Amino acid sequence: MRNHKVVLTRSLAGVPDAGDFRVVDEALPEPEDREFLVRHLYLSLDPYQRSAMAGRHRLGRGPLVAGDMPAAETLGQVLRSRHPDYREGDYVRHFGGWQEYALSAGERTERVDPALAPLSAWLGVLGMPGLTAWASAVELAGVQAGQTVLVSAALGPVGSMVGQLAIQRGATAVGIAGSDEKCAIVTGEFGFRACVNYRQEGFLERLRAALPEGADVYHDNVGGQMLADAFSVLKVNGTVILCGLMERYNDPARSKPLDLALPIMKRAVMKGLVVSDFEHRRPVFEAAVAAGIRTGQIRYREDRVAGIGQAGAHFARLMRGENVGKSLVVLGPEAAN
Amino acid sequence: MRNHKVVLTRSLAGVPDAGDFRVVDEALPEPEDREFLVRHLYLSLDPYQRSAMAGRHRLGRGPLVAGDMPAAETLGQVLRSRHPDYREGDYVRHFGGWQEYALSAGERTERVDPALAPLSAWLGVLGMPGLTAWASAVELAGVQAGQTVLVSAALGPVGSMVGQLAIQRGATAVGIAGSDEKCAIVTGEFGFRACVNYRQEGFLERLRAALPEGADVYHDNVGGQMLADAFSVLKVNGTVILCGLMERYNDPARSKPLDLALPIMKRAVMKGLVVSDFEHRRPVFEAAVAAGIRTGQIRYREDRVAGIGQAGAHFARLMRGENVGKSLVVLGPEAAN
Repeated sequence: MRNHKVVLTRSLAGVPDAGDFRVVDEALPEPEDREFLVRHLYLSLDPYQRSAMAGRHRLGRGPLVAGDMPAAETLGQVLRSRHPDYREGDYVRHFGGWQEYALSAGERTERVDPALAPLSAWLGVLGMPGLTAWASAVELAGVQAGQTVLVSAALGPVGSMVGQLAIQRGATAVGIAGSDEKCAIVTGEFGFRACVNYRQEGFLERLRAALPEGADVYHDNVGGQMLADAFSVLKVNGTVILCGLMERYNDPARSKPLDLALPIMKRAVMKGLVVSDFEHRRPVFEAAVAAGIRTGQIRYREDRVAGIGQAGAHFARLMRGENVGKSLVVLGPEAAN
Repeated sequence: MRNHKVVLTRSLAGVPDAGDFRVVDEALPEPEDREFLVRHLYLSLDPYQRSAMAGRHRLGRGPLVAGDMPAAETLGQVLRSRHPDYREGDYVRHFGGWQEYALSAGERTERVDPALAPLSAWLGVLGMPGLTAWASAVELAGVQAGQTVLVSAALGPVGSMVGQLAIQRGATAVGIAGSDEKCAIVTGEFGFRACVNYRQEGFLERLRAALPEGADVYHDNVGGQMLADAFSVLKVNGTVILCGLMERYNDPARSKPLDLALPIMKRAVMKGLVVSDFEHRRPVFEAAVAAGIRTGQIRYREDRVAGIGQAGAHFARLMRGENVGKSLVVLGPEAAN
């Protein structure tokens, strides 16, 4: 058996495209003592990986150069183990990277229970994006019944969960997304009261019309002009959760920074969110969300492609905002079907 | 008797200078029914007035043009009254503007008790700057014993009070000021543990050295690069009170906006402060600060000039950061001595 991994063909500049990546074929490594080999079933593609590739993310090393494999979370099954805590057949989530197989010594690895929820969900609503949404809506914003929560990138795995968690708590969610098709899903499937397409003319006016009384909370995945626009519909004393900077991941030099007069005028409380701070909340988060998935109260969308060779093009779509839901590459047996 | 008021000679551009202002002589107005005439004893000069002159402050109207008088708080004595609630001899604080006398119908006017504290203090530590500091340290940051509070513009009436209130609550204060002379006052007179001169080479290194364990709270009067530097010494989960934007009052186009990655990396809580939200706390604030002045626990510095003709030049010094303490123009009998 062979491993296939994706590496950069060159250092990235701006929005990535498929030509920035190529597949490398290599021999399958053998686990040494206290190691195990994981066959990946799902590879998670997330916007933060763009920052990591540029060396701007705490999960990354320095900037990646030609030949380097991007880091990523993967969901897989233990194929061979010489580790006392992991057995063949165990399902695990770890930072396996953009490849079909990976060795692990158990660092930053969690065993997942396939009976609790579909496997791929452990990379989305039950994974880092879901915990991020939980940290925002529940821990940092403390969303309460009767509030209105505005969410950018509302169809993505973080945004859609922020809205659904807010709705579960008795609040109203209003989304922002990049197409009318996405907005139809945000309202029709995720239960947001309204969704505004930011790529259509007159965005700010339509945003104001969607929030006649303003927003109590804004969950920001984007930064830049969208954050400035959100401040114009934020209520006085509103809360802003600073969670992502999608606007600048591709090219920080072109980023539009925040005018500090906006939070001052709105007496806003802004809170920066780093998901790793909320590891201790994972058990309560997982129990709540797994239950919500079973009852149908929590829904999610996945944007899947099959085969490691598709990872680069799929990531490029994600970074152009063309994904519809959680971006995943399906590997292993399911991909082969 | 005649009134003398200061008006603009032209619309302001950049840092103001004395030539932007001139004195106009006019007849003293007579109070009509339900009005009273105030003879001003002190005129308060504050950085927000620069924004108001440019039409960028909520206290202002549009941008001021040649012939317009700047708005400002003044402390004075009722000279003649046809108002049932104000009698000749009453001491009042109101928005009288840059002039020696003003009519009032009682809007935004407070009577002050000259027995409680020196009259001029009602424009400083017992006035808007003091209430601003109270709102920051007590209401928004909720400074607690054992914390370290970093304060920019630490010799100014807001900053010096933020530090002293923090120290009263058992915290440690570290200041930032624009000269070694100022820093000596900040530590020697106001009890800050340390003070860093931002105009000296190697500011960031010296700031780090002054805060080896970092700051729990940063009170920001400045914005721009100083805010960015403060983030580099802010503890994770620290609090930033966004209070003033001195860096941009003179010229917002040259302002350096905030890189949002900084608050996210620090999981910071940022809160915008607008002092008028805290009017309801004025009684408890006034009681606490007046007591502090009497016991010597709360100190303040004033930077005084005498005569309305000095207002423009004194304001220009303030906007260049050359004031040493609360900027005041002394008018009336005290000025004549």
